[in-house]
Amino acid sequence: MKIERAVDIKTLKRSIDQDSEAQLLSVQDILNQVKEQGDAALFELTGKFDGVMLEELRVSPEEIQQAYQEMDDELVEIIKEAAKNIEEYHVQQKKQSWFFTRPDGTMLGQKIIPLDSVGVYVPGGTAAYPSSVLMGVTPAKVAGVERIVLVSPPDKNGKLPAGVLVAANESGVAAIFKIGGAQAIGALAYGTETIKSVDKIVGPGNLYVALAKREVFGTVDIDMIAGPSEIAVLADGTANPAYIAADLLSQAEHDPRSASVLVTTSEALAEQVAKEVDKQLQTLPRREIAERAIRDYGAIYLVESLKDGIDLINEIAPEHLEVMTQNPTELLGQIKHAGAIFLGPNSSEPVGDYFAGSNHVLPTSGTARFSSPLNVDDFTKKSSVIMYSERAIQDNAKKIAAFARLEGLEAHARAVEKRLEEKEDE
Amino acid sequence: MKIERAVDIKTLKRSIDQDSEAQLLSVQDILNQVKEQGDAALFELTGKFDGVMLEELRVSPEEIQQAYQEMDDELVEIIKEAAKNIEEYHVQQKKQSWFFTRPDGTMLGQKIIPLDSVGVYVPGGTAAYPSSVLMGVTPAKVAGVERIVLVSPPDKNGKLPAGVLVAANESGVAAIFKIGGAQAIGALAYGTETIKSVDKIVGPGNLYVALAKREVFGTVDIDMIAGPSEIAVLADGTANPAYIAADLLSQAEHDPRSASVLVTTSEALAEQVAKEVDKQLQTLPRREIAERAIRDYGAIYLVESLKDGIDLINEIAPEHLEVMTQNPTELLGQIKHAGAIFLGPNSSEPVGDYFAGSNHVLPTSGTARFSSPLNVDDFTKKSSVIMYSERAIQDNAKKIAAFARLEGLEAHARAVEKRLEEKEDE
Repeated sequence: MKIERAVDIKTLKRSIDQDSEAQLLSVQDILNQVKEQGDAALFELTGKFDGVMLEELRVSPEEIQQAYQEMDDELVEIIKEAAKNIEEYHVQQKKQSWFFTRPDGTMLGQKIIPLDSVGVYVPGGTAAYPSSVLMGVTPAKVAGVERIVLVSPPDKNGKLPAGVLVAANESGVAAIFKIGGAQAIGALAYGTETIKSVDKIVGPGNLYVALAKREVFGTVDIDMIAGPSEIAVLADGTANPAYIAADLLSQAEHDPRSASVLVTTSEALAEQVAKEVDKQLQTLPRREIAERAIRDYGAIYLVESLKDGIDLINEIAPEHLEVMTQNPTELLGQIKHAGAIFLGPNSSEPVGDYFAGSNHVLPTSGTARFSSPLNVDDFTKKSSVIMYSERAIQDNAKKIAAFARLEGLEAHARAVEKRLEEKEDE
Repeated sequence: MKIERAVDIKTLKRSIDQDSEAQLLSVQDILNQVKEQGDAALFELTGKFDGVMLEELRVSPEEIQQAYQEMDDELVEIIKEAAKNIEEYHVQQKKQSWFFTRPDGTMLGQKIIPLDSVGVYVPGGTAAYPSSVLMGVTPAKVAGVERIVLVSPPDKNGKLPAGVLVAANESGVAAIFKIGGAQAIGALAYGTETIKSVDKIVGPGNLYVALAKREVFGTVDIDMIAGPSEIAVLADGTANPAYIAADLLSQAEHDPRSASVLVTTSEALAEQVAKEVDKQLQTLPRREIAERAIRDYGAIYLVESLKDGIDLINEIAPEHLEVMTQNPTELLGQIKHAGAIFLGPNSSEPVGDYFAGSNHVLPTSGTARFSSPLNVDDFTKKSSVIMYSERAIQDNAKKIAAFARLEGLEAHARAVEKRLEEKEDE
């Protein structure tokens, strides 16, 4: 791993997958097919893309029961404990409706209302991610969403992984459907005979899923389109190089385009971490992926001071930030842009990926400048509440009318003045 | 205005402006030109589209001073009072960072951080909207955004309307630039010599502005793309038909595609409102627009009960909802989908457009199912904070590692186990 003195974070800028015209047309075709043919299209497209002719789209209670039997009991317990921790964290995010009053009798407020229904997309493929199920479903559940459905592409035998089914059941989804790809997004957005449409679709997926989500945005709401992810570690000379190397590699094993960055004031630490990374890499099962990620998007930046280090971190706006300095909490006030901030030597990133309770769906690729971790607010919306009293409208109607006329909107002016007129008539 | 017994809200579904390929290409060209040529492109494009060769992009302090002189003192006072009310409402939306602890030494939290910089787009053209300035800027200001800049297209003399300048100054923007269209969006997203880039762009605009916002989304954040707007009134026999008619028309005068809908249990009221609308229409300056809107997208729906009425309202999910029944507050608990809810006979919609304090940037065209009024949260973002203690990691590392291995992520497992190893070494 290379150590750099001149800081240039341009190399960290990785592009999000580019869509070709052909892929977009194919996605539009799939969406139209689902819109027009409903379930029939889902069966056909699942045959075509997932290589299985399903008998039922929906996962049966028996399949869920079987998943529990297939799984190691200890793992089931771990999933349950993680689910409990994740719920505990997200409950803190719940907001109250509120109002305030003015002496003239005005009442103004904001009503917080959960979405009616949400669809969570869980990718299939090489690895199954039960943790993504918990992270997608729990905030919606805590928000009070009544109907949460989960979709995920089946394997060649028409099955979903046991871990996904157990996690889905533990987090409280209403129904699980064995569909994936753009066709799953179409089903959630437009509805079919079996699958009622939802108000919002969340969860990561491949390029086709991302394109489909962008296409249906407006008909339903969507979460962000995730780009390649990253970790940055800010450390001084007190940090443990083996911890840092292990944490950098945990990010690197995700994807050849994952970025792993150390920012440090200590040249000695920089050298030790570089060595540790190379050493720990040797025995990783996903070594090939991690090695490419470290080579292409790994960097150790030497900085003059922690202040400079924090400036650099704020410029990178990393998805994950670990702070391994003597007094990490003292630096929290200066950190402006990071999806999740892990403080101290024991807060290894996977702690947050699986278990502590915070969400692992985080803003990637510098979007932490303006985006947030997936959270309960994402599954609620607000309504303004305005109640003007007779006195308030009598006192203010002329002012409001004058403002409306300044904007050339006479009917607006007359609507409020109508309340004066009627009063004068009495 | 027609009264309908069979309820079919399909006619309310108005499409958002469709973009042609040509318009999109033109927007992409403009964005590229701004990206490559900076200020020079802005001067050239403003000459081309707004018909004025500017000397300076930025509004000078003298121009702002002049705006105050041009405006009626009473109007300045009204704008100031509106600004104060809007601030009072939005201050209530501010959220606190929070944390909680576990007995094992874990600390988990969420830090709330304002965005660094925001750009507010204010449309030019026939009507100037100082109220939109207040509504766009105030929540950003209250959120704590340090740099708020405003952009708006100049007239042929290179000026912005006095009302816009006064409102901008009262709401506390850092700088005002005389640029509009896709070129203004490009400048805010990419930055030029004079205009530093921002993290988020908000505010409505024409089709070119909307297309440009969609193009730069990802580089910066954007607010929603607004569609045609609407009002729905839910009323029983106790309501005043003249009030309802006036409020329906205040919405109708905006745009020929604005929808104005009355849902009522009272046939007598329905007939009176239909007559009143026709009567009040006659003398409106914007009669032509309002008449088309009422003809094409106006409707009075007769329902059996208030319960049926509320079901219909929730299906429409109107931008504005007025509740004019005997006990409007009692119905608040059943209303699930509406951008802003106006309760009682005195809460005429323009009260909320200008003065009460709530935001007038609201989810349109049924998107109140999943979207919210513009608010302080839109200008902040969250960072998760995770601090695991030594005991917490020692107690949980094996569980976390098992979860990671279930997902095939060995480096994740090893990162947490590294903390055990080192412990055993001691």
